[in-house]
Amino acid sequence: IARFLSKNWRFLEKAWKLGASEPRKVIHCLKVGVALSLVSLFYYMRPLYDGVGGTAMWAVMTVVVVFEYTVGATLYKCINRATGTFLAGSLGIGVHWVASQSGEKFEPIIAGIPVFLLASAATFSRFIPSIKARFDYGAMIFILTFSLVSVAGYRVEKLFEMAHNRVSTIVLGTSICICTSMLICPVWAGNELHLLINRNMEKLADSLEGCVAECFNRDGIVKTSDDDFSKKLQGYKFALNSKASEESMANFARWEPAHGPFNFRHPWKQYLKIGAAMRNCSCCVESLSSCINSEIQIPKFLKKNFSEVCMRLSAHCSEVLKEMVVTMKTMTKSSTTDLLVEEMNFAVQELQNALKALPNQLISPHGSANDTKVETTSKQFIVPVIEIVPLATTISLLSEIAARIEGIV
Amino acid sequence: IARFLSKNWRFLEKAWKLGASEPRKVIHCLKVGVALSLVSLFYYMRPLYDGVGGTAMWAVMTVVVVFEYTVGATLYKCINRATGTFLAGSLGIGVHWVASQSGEKFEPIIAGIPVFLLASAATFSRFIPSIKARFDYGAMIFILTFSLVSVAGYRVEKLFEMAHNRVSTIVLGTSICICTSMLICPVWAGNELHLLINRNMEKLADSLEGCVAECFNRDGIVKTSDDDFSKKLQGYKFALNSKASEESMANFARWEPAHGPFNFRHPWKQYLKIGAAMRNCSCCVESLSSCINSEIQIPKFLKKNFSEVCMRLSAHCSEVLKEMVVTMKTMTKSSTTDLLVEEMNFAVQELQNALKALPNQLISPHGSANDTKVETTSKQFIVPVIEIVPLATTISLLSEIAARIEGIV
Repeated sequence: IARFLSKNWRFLEKAWKLGASEPRKVIHCLKVGVALSLVSLFYYMRPLYDGVGGTAMWAVMTVVVVFEYTVGATLYKCINRATGTFLAGSLGIGVHWVASQSGEKFEPIIAGIPVFLLASAATFSRFIPSIKARFDYGAMIFILTFSLVSVAGYRVEKLFEMAHNRVSTIVLGTSICICTSMLICPVWAGNELHLLINRNMEKLADSLEGCVAECFNRDGIVKTSDDDFSKKLQGYKFALNSKASEESMANFARWEPAHGPFNFRHPWKQYLKIGAAMRNCSCCVESLSSCINSEIQIPKFLKKNFSEVCMRLSAHCSEVLKEMVVTMKTMTKSSTTDLLVEEMNFAVQELQNALKALPNQLISPHGSANDTKVETTSKQFIVPVIEIVPLATTISLLSEIAARIEGIV
Repeated sequence: IARFLSKNWRFLEKAWKLGASEPRKVIHCLKVGVALSLVSLFYYMRPLYDGVGGTAMWAVMTVVVVFEYTVGATLYKCINRATGTFLAGSLGIGVHWVASQSGEKFEPIIAGIPVFLLASAATFSRFIPSIKARFDYGAMIFILTFSLVSVAGYRVEKLFEMAHNRVSTIVLGTSICICTSMLICPVWAGNELHLLINRNMEKLADSLEGCVAECFNRDGIVKTSDDDFSKKLQGYKFALNSKASEESMANFARWEPAHGPFNFRHPWKQYLKIGAAMRNCSCCVESLSSCINSEIQIPKFLKKNFSEVCMRLSAHCSEVLKEMVVTMKTMTKSSTTDLLVEEMNFAVQELQNALKALPNQLISPHGSANDTKVETTSKQFIVPVIEIVPLATTISLLSEIAARIEGIV
């Protein structure tokens, strides 16, 4: 029992930490409560209850099912649910009318066949990627309402009234949802996406810089192995793993109206492109860091030789990335970006020159005894260049994207 | 109008191709139709309809909402829905009883406060990762049923009967879903995951081999730029991007009973580990391929020098990967895996030796005039080694996992 209690306690503690670190999630929970209480009012007040014909249940259901964390997701579900219900409802009534004209005996068959066919077709449409991204939920609701109306029509007499009630309660539920999610501390999917990309880019810049610094200061004066630093170093992993959340947020962001600095037709797809470019970069950082952790060490004289150039290059790279963050935040193309990219390319050139100069230096003071070492070390040093080639391309890509964003916003 | 028609036509064509390429998805659609038709029977047959007390609507709804592509997902939703409904229903009745004891005036307040509190708490619990993975849907259903029962209780007289009907219809719906999804051409999430990992590993092996081959045959006799080959080269991207689907499938696979060669407590988490290791590998392949596409070319004499060693190494690597695929397919540890890993490590050694021998060769026949070239080329050649260091570690990891899989299965 003691173990069970302590387990429970730890679980609660974890939950509390989660809530403390992200107060907006707690606010979201309260919002759900508020929306539900608003809907419940329709039950408790006699005039309101009679107004919707006693089917207020659907409104409660709509609120629970539709209310999501971000405004975009809520809107997506609301619009899908409303249109799906409306379409399927009208179609269902049509089918029911045809079936009821055909006599008692054939009615189930004539009503049943469209259910089978349409349900299969709508399920299939959910597999098509372009529909899945936008209307997945709508297709489900379509199947649901259509089969409910056309099947229930066989038993329920006042079918038209039922359909009408269902549509009106759903509209009621969705409007309550939209109001609460948009008016009380709204969480915009677009804004979240924007912040996520910014945060990831910053982390990437930090970890790139940290990686190269670690590479050259390894047996330096300060053994920088504190937790904070290694966390920074792992920052690129966030950029690498956030593909799914980026995509879903970009998907939801499309449904949102203009908010804050974003217009209605904000180029959300550009964010996905930036995300992909960043994943590309973090792949390189990943390989770079795996080199650092390999057993082969860099000899000191080489380290001295190269550390300056490499450090400068990585500093320039992360500067460009950070400048990009600023550019994205203000959403204007700053004139310094080009300058910084220029500087970075210059640093790449410098590093290449240093590499070219290397063999001469080595051969003269050390002779061939050091040859094997040269290999292992140049192996170590070459990585940054390799790493920088795609980095440079992605960064030029990024600046192009920034120009485009600036052009549209 | 012509444009609209042609657009529609293309869309239909695309859908047809999708259906033709994955017949199991079409079968799934038909399964949904079958399940819905079965449920509709309850409406059309008078004795059955009376048996569930006229609330067969819930059964239809359950089927539509719960039926998913894989068995695991269906089971997950069924179990979550049933337990969520049951828990919330009993709790809701309890709250309703307390509220009804407190008199007409306070009843809405006493019934409303628990709705607010429990809805907020359950919504919050959906943010906790460990609960989200397993009980996300259940928490939603819990909120739904609880608010329905406790709110509707204010108006509906026969509350107990209503709750009982709801539970029984949901059980009916879920059992129909489980039967159709498990008996008619079942799609097991576990099996899908298994195949996905296998396929990705094969693709990774192919693209690794292809990459190195491309690297050394670039200005060779045959310009292998046909579509098929470049598709192969891009194979590593599948491994890189399938994180989300792997995770969701492993999640669903946990709910599945024993099927085919998999037991109930199959170590699905191992698959996630393999997937992560493969993503690591494909990161390296990514950097490698970006080197191939860079402008710096390898001088011919070096290419001749190294091509054999590198090709052998890549061949060994992909051999090990393919052996792993076989190992996973048969789920027994083959004795050749160790041998192949051994061979691969030997090839790594060979490559390193060749690299060590390189400077001497270069200095003797060419003198210092070629020095700059040495740098750019060693830059090119070093990549495979860099690439191989994590690859070797991942492969040893993989073989360890294979041993574990063999131990458990």
